[in-house]
Amino acid sequence: MDLKPTKPLSGFIELLPAQQRCFDECTRRMQNVLRTCGYSRLDLPAIERAEVLTDKDNWDEIETQIFLFQKGDTKMGLRYDGTVGLSRFVAGHMNDLTFPFYTYQFARNYRGERPQRGRYREFWQLDIDILGIQNLSLNYDAEIVSTLVRVYESVADIVGSVKVKIGNRRFWNAMFAYLNLNEAQARDAFVLIDKRDKISDFVDGLIETVGENAAKEINSVFTNGYRSFMGKSAELDAAISEMDKFMSLLDAMGVKNAEIDVSIMRGHSYYTGIVFEFFSIDYPELPAVGGGGRYENLASKFSKTKIVGVGASIGVSRLLVALMEMGKIDLSKWEKSIDVTVLVMGDDNLPYAMSVLNTLRDEKIPSVAYLDTDKKFKSQIEYSDKILAKYSMIIGEDEVKNKVVAVKDMKTGQQQTLPLGDAIKLVRGNV
Amino acid sequence: MDLKPTKPLSGFIELLPAQQRCFDECTRRMQNVLRTCGYSRLDLPAIERAEVLTDKDNWDEIETQIFLFQKGDTKMGLRYDGTVGLSRFVAGHMNDLTFPFYTYQFARNYRGERPQRGRYREFWQLDIDILGIQNLSLNYDAEIVSTLVRVYESVADIVGSVKVKIGNRRFWNAMFAYLNLNEAQARDAFVLIDKRDKISDFVDGLIETVGENAAKEINSVFTNGYRSFMGKSAELDAAISEMDKFMSLLDAMGVKNAEIDVSIMRGHSYYTGIVFEFFSIDYPELPAVGGGGRYENLASKFSKTKIVGVGASIGVSRLLVALMEMGKIDLSKWEKSIDVTVLVMGDDNLPYAMSVLNTLRDEKIPSVAYLDTDKKFKSQIEYSDKILAKYSMIIGEDEVKNKVVAVKDMKTGQQQTLPLGDAIKLVRGNV
Repeated sequence: MDLKPTKPLSGFIELLPAQQRCFDECTRRMQNVLRTCGYSRLDLPAIERAEVLTDKDNWDEIETQIFLFQKGDTKMGLRYDGTVGLSRFVAGHMNDLTFPFYTYQFARNYRGERPQRGRYREFWQLDIDILGIQNLSLNYDAEIVSTLVRVYESVADIVGSVKVKIGNRRFWNAMFAYLNLNEAQARDAFVLIDKRDKISDFVDGLIETVGENAAKEINSVFTNGYRSFMGKSAELDAAISEMDKFMSLLDAMGVKNAEIDVSIMRGHSYYTGIVFEFFSIDYPELPAVGGGGRYENLASKFSKTKIVGVGASIGVSRLLVALMEMGKIDLSKWEKSIDVTVLVMGDDNLPYAMSVLNTLRDEKIPSVAYLDTDKKFKSQIEYSDKILAKYSMIIGEDEVKNKVVAVKDMKTGQQQTLPLGDAIKLVRGNV
Repeated sequence: MDLKPTKPLSGFIELLPAQQRCFDECTRRMQNVLRTCGYSRLDLPAIERAEVLTDKDNWDEIETQIFLFQKGDTKMGLRYDGTVGLSRFVAGHMNDLTFPFYTYQFARNYRGERPQRGRYREFWQLDIDILGIQNLSLNYDAEIVSTLVRVYESVADIVGSVKVKIGNRRFWNAMFAYLNLNEAQARDAFVLIDKRDKISDFVDGLIETVGENAAKEINSVFTNGYRSFMGKSAELDAAISEMDKFMSLLDAMGVKNAEIDVSIMRGHSYYTGIVFEFFSIDYPELPAVGGGGRYENLASKFSKTKIVGVGASIGVSRLLVALMEMGKIDLSKWEKSIDVTVLVMGDDNLPYAMSVLNTLRDEKIPSVAYLDTDKKFKSQIEYSDKILAKYSMIIGEDEVKNKVVAVKDMKTGQQQTLPLGDAIKLVRGNV
């Protein structure tokens, strides 16, 4: 019989235990921060009706990337971000929630696209949102950025430090109005500005799209600074003031490493105001490691009530797996997970050995037993070595008789016979 | 425009924040136990190749229940349990793992079946396994049961206590051999014994299947006890001794509330020895809340190396959501998640208010700010009330000027003005 393949499908992530331990510790810390900052977790279904997932304004490109399938008469698909489900949920539970509603999701999302390096078809993502009914002040945009900074700081010893770049969709809408661009021109200019870092002929592209004069003006945003457009229109003034106020709020919140970069656009069409992206300081070769922005009336497909919000996401898998693949995370730190292995020399000694194991576990000391009791001492101690246990507690006939344990320090090789209480103190470093 | 539906697909679970908080706390505790007991987490893909999911011996009934779909040329589907993926993973990473390999998965599984009460199409499940190469002693079966007991105990204050019933597939194989049943008779008898609790005409069914004499013998297992078959065959003796040894091991491990119930079969065909099921003591109306058993050569489809193991699963969603629906979990305990709300009377006071919020969060005090600063005091304090904050810290002009906070105890209504350090002591109950 042919054996079946043991590799996962391409684009799917599979971590080994040490990698998973590192991943879980990062996500545990990140979620602790979010809980401390008052964000309630939602765990929405991974599967949604096809009609909920598709037909989002201007999101045609997403539609081809969704995992869609049919079960009975129902067309459904896998979630590709946290926003669609959140909109549906909030619209359906308006009376069960208190607004502003601080919430986060930590869930797997799916993309049907052909996988490339660093792009996965299944990945864990943190989606963080603050939602309000009708209105939500700009202050919440600063709140969410400062919370994300805390989230990243909680794992900085593992993934390095980040900086945040702030853009403003409103500024560009005001610019395009000031320059009298039509809708198509504005859209094309938007795309060019979004990709400014990646294209060499930015100005040429602009000239082709919006004409020489408007291109010159747009480019001068980058050469002379966005503040040079102060006084050109009421909308431009408002957008520039908004950015200034935003920066002073971040400052008040103790956010370091924040700067305005008006070329930050965020591709998704639903953003309407402040947008932001986080970049790694230590690993500048990484693409944005998170981002988000302000949106208006997101749940209009589900409710007549206007729900406004500010949202952000962190591609947790993308960030951690990228750093693991780059060798930037020292996985040897995450190999060790066990303090004590209990080794049992013969089945007769099992009852006492198990009571030792139970006591260790009651004391919350990570501990495991090697229970193939007929194996020789050498095989058993080898197991302790392989799983990098700090100590072995060896139980033979003498230990049972004298109600003690033989404790071997796996690093020094030193072995001593102690009552269990003293052995526990030794393991805890309390001697 | 018609609004889209806000309900999730039928059979999918959606918890409100308080329910989710309870759920997350339970799963956090359960996973802490598993980590302390030395089980490493694996987080395997939710999507597998169709050929990996299907074509499992005797599992035809599963095949019709899988979510299968196609992307490009590749047929794939959603995982329905943790076993298939684990077999594939372990076969592919034999050299990266140390055996016996203690592992657990906490993941969503999917069933395509038409949903019924208590049966979900998407649900979180804990899958706990110990795998060995070629051999694994019976002691590990007892280890996994004792670990599951710890897992349940960690949440007993929320979900109540459990008992465990132990069966043995080997006993029945020995019985059927002793009674000279053919393969079809053995299979039918197996099904009848598995459903013994649910059918009224157990003995009649047996007579029809295996004849009067064998039916009488099988029934006497339940009327006279399994030990009455001691001495009838070497295989029966071995199986009975195995159960006795198993119970004494559980006893040595401090497991209470364990009993032999030879009618415990576990439907899945792959079990070969000891099988067990957990039942709620406090809510006997619930079906089994977990179970598992010994299996041999599970990864034969993926590897020529024999991988043996003992595995168990806990239907975490099924258990918790059932108890929530039955009203057995006091959700009012889980509504409160915030110690402090910072209320800001006017945008001018924001910078100081934000520094207060930052200090609270640095001190790991769950805290959130109400940032629509133009709202009247009444609306702001109402928000504190609604989210059940313990304290409000109110920041107005005077507080900024005097570098203090006005702290309102939301339960007593008592308000006092304090330096932030003292306010933090108050919140922590250190006054």
